[in-house]
Amino acid sequence: MKQQLDELMAARGLDAVIVNGAGDHNPAMVYMSGGGHFKASLVKARGSEPVIYCYPMEREEAARTGLQAKLHQTLKTDPASLAMEMRWMLQDNGLRTGRVAFYGQVDAGEFLSVMQELQRIAPEYELVGEPQDTILMAARTTKEPGEIERIRLMGVVTTRVVGRVADMLSTAKVHGNHLLNSVGDPLRVGEVKKQINLWLAEEGAENPEGTIFSIGRDAGIPHSAGSAEDILELGKPIVFDIFPCEAQGGYFYDFTRTWCLGYAPDAVAKLYEDVLSVYQAVVGELAPGRLCKDYQSLTCDLFSKLGHPTILTHPGTTDGYVHSLGHGLGLAVHEAPWFSMSMATNDLLVPGSIFTIEPGLYYPDQGMGVRLEDTYLAESNGSFSKLADFPMNLVLSTRKD
Amino acid sequence: MKQQLDELMAARGLDAVIVNGAGDHNPAMVYMSGGGHFKASLVKARGSEPVIYCYPMEREEAARTGLQAKLHQTLKTDPASLAMEMRWMLQDNGLRTGRVAFYGQVDAGEFLSVMQELQRIAPEYELVGEPQDTILMAARTTKEPGEIERIRLMGVVTTRVVGRVADMLSTAKVHGNHLLNSVGDPLRVGEVKKQINLWLAEEGAENPEGTIFSIGRDAGIPHSAGSAEDILELGKPIVFDIFPCEAQGGYFYDFTRTWCLGYAPDAVAKLYEDVLSVYQAVVGELAPGRLCKDYQSLTCDLFSKLGHPTILTHPGTTDGYVHSLGHGLGLAVHEAPWFSMSMATNDLLVPGSIFTIEPGLYYPDQGMGVRLEDTYLAESNGSFSKLADFPMNLVLSTRKD
Repeated sequence: MKQQLDELMAARGLDAVIVNGAGDHNPAMVYMSGGGHFKASLVKARGSEPVIYCYPMEREEAARTGLQAKLHQTLKTDPASLAMEMRWMLQDNGLRTGRVAFYGQVDAGEFLSVMQELQRIAPEYELVGEPQDTILMAARTTKEPGEIERIRLMGVVTTRVVGRVADMLSTAKVHGNHLLNSVGDPLRVGEVKKQINLWLAEEGAENPEGTIFSIGRDAGIPHSAGSAEDILELGKPIVFDIFPCEAQGGYFYDFTRTWCLGYAPDAVAKLYEDVLSVYQAVVGELAPGRLCKDYQSLTCDLFSKLGHPTILTHPGTTDGYVHSLGHGLGLAVHEAPWFSMSMATNDLLVPGSIFTIEPGLYYPDQGMGVRLEDTYLAESNGSFSKLADFPMNLVLSTRKD
Repeated sequence: MKQQLDELMAARGLDAVIVNGAGDHNPAMVYMSGGGHFKASLVKARGSEPVIYCYPMEREEAARTGLQAKLHQTLKTDPASLAMEMRWMLQDNGLRTGRVAFYGQVDAGEFLSVMQELQRIAPEYELVGEPQDTILMAARTTKEPGEIERIRLMGVVTTRVVGRVADMLSTAKVHGNHLLNSVGDPLRVGEVKKQINLWLAEEGAENPEGTIFSIGRDAGIPHSAGSAEDILELGKPIVFDIFPCEAQGGYFYDFTRTWCLGYAPDAVAKLYEDVLSVYQAVVGELAPGRLCKDYQSLTCDLFSKLGHPTILTHPGTTDGYVHSLGHGLGLAVHEAPWFSMSMATNDLLVPGSIFTIEPGLYYPDQGMGVRLEDTYLAESNGSFSKLADFPMNLVLSTRKD
């Protein structure tokens, strides 16, 4: 939670944090400011409230954040001017020396040039880049009640849209082995995705990273987004992974189902049973205070026992269980706590954390993949709850006429 | 154009460029790769084709770009591992030493930590951060025919949605001095914006930075996005600035009209006439090869002669003409060529450049602002053409019943 920040800064010996960049689609800035239509630098000295520095044109947008909003001293944007501005902002917050850490989504070239210049003109500051496991990420891991409600609401929005997609597919006309659209042409993945974006917009949500809606061989490649031209054929697994956010880059939700239209071939049904059983076993084991990584290790063991290769037994495999079990979720679709065993972090399942559980199995050369994903909240009473319910069935019935 | 890159690299003494980050909503990566659903590093050594480095999960998405796609050597993501990976990628492209420049939208903390570590382990490379006026931006300034067509199409989409908004407002019921929505409540800015997002989604477009739809005093603050709760009152100026892009962060369009519902008070009509006359005068002066900044200076002079303060005569003013005349447009809503006089660049109006012309006048304390904006292409024959037509009238008639 945000109130942990001073403590976290002290623990890591940071005297100030500077968040740069846009007020939208920029998790660190949205977290610290509440977001808005501006580009700014936000400076927080340890023990003080954050101050936001913006250009005159954006003064009212910045002031809407409720933070103290000040104007930049110059309109110049060359590296030397920006570095001098950065030094002035630190001095303006009472900092003559110290360790300063930087956050936010930034342009690599401009940021590197400003950092090099700032280091040259202001060697009294140590410039710190925190990778991944940052103090902001640590604070963000424990959600406040208002954040939980916003993510829960995105879960309602997400599953409502998934329900509309299921209805659309179930009621579409069937021709031979595939679905038809309303004008009688084969229904294709691109058309389904466009409809998803439309329904998300109706709900006031955004879909900045797109949707995974992949069928057949594409379903066997976890991060294939699917091919727009693919026709929705019966009996082929469809991995439908949807991760929209509030408008202008607020809180996300993340959700996956695997469907077969009309019927499921035996091999797909077997794969689905294996994934579902591991999903249920892992969810049954969730307990507060445990290492997230242990669940990845448990998942690998369970899939191994079912006879599947995993990244633990077969590093680099593209068959079997090939990714991590889940990830935290909030202002970024992927954030702490991390479940990956290859990452240097040792995150725990602490109350207030919100995370996905998403085991999957992939056999691209057999034209199939299955993933099931829900988003869970670690409650303060030690229990775990799914943030949005939706049926898990594999087969989606189709029209019989 | 992309084919200028080797020449631009030679001119600035760059041996390699590295673009980092996502394949969507990341102009440098979308420009160099065509975009996709992946996170990657793209390395281009001078004189060679770009190579894209990704993780196994995203290999097929990266390969869809048509570039040579290779796998990272490690799954580890701590700064030391990432820096070693960066050094290996450079070596893999035949570079043992040299000047390497970095691009892309990146996480500030992680990027800074990797740059510091890379500089420590690989002092044989000079790490270059190009601010704003980068070689990629220089290449992007001259659009290829395919890029022009995509932006033109976004212009069609944008003006079609603006037309639907105009129709909605013109046909809405009027109650006293304001519009009503379909259920008979006062129509508010938030509802209009939601409808805009819906229509953009229907067109397959995205609206990642939101819409400016600001009325009255908000219209007098150029970057105020507007207040969701504001009611659509008659006779108050509405600045409607819309800048959507292709799905997943492709090419943008940028367009502004100022409307008064039902009637325009004399003061607003006068302001509008002044802006329109300057708009027309500036467009009439467009000529290939001229400095963009000269048009900003011309605009200031014209507004001064009409009796308005400008940032040239009154630095820091928030009344009168307070921003720059326009900006280039492409994979970013703001890119080169730059028209601002406070920037260090000296961009020219070269054939193939696409840019906005958007003079405006603002008097927040009088509750009014007016801006008119269209996007123009500098044609190869020396002429200039507006990429999408739309009426410029100030008054939007309302229902009489």
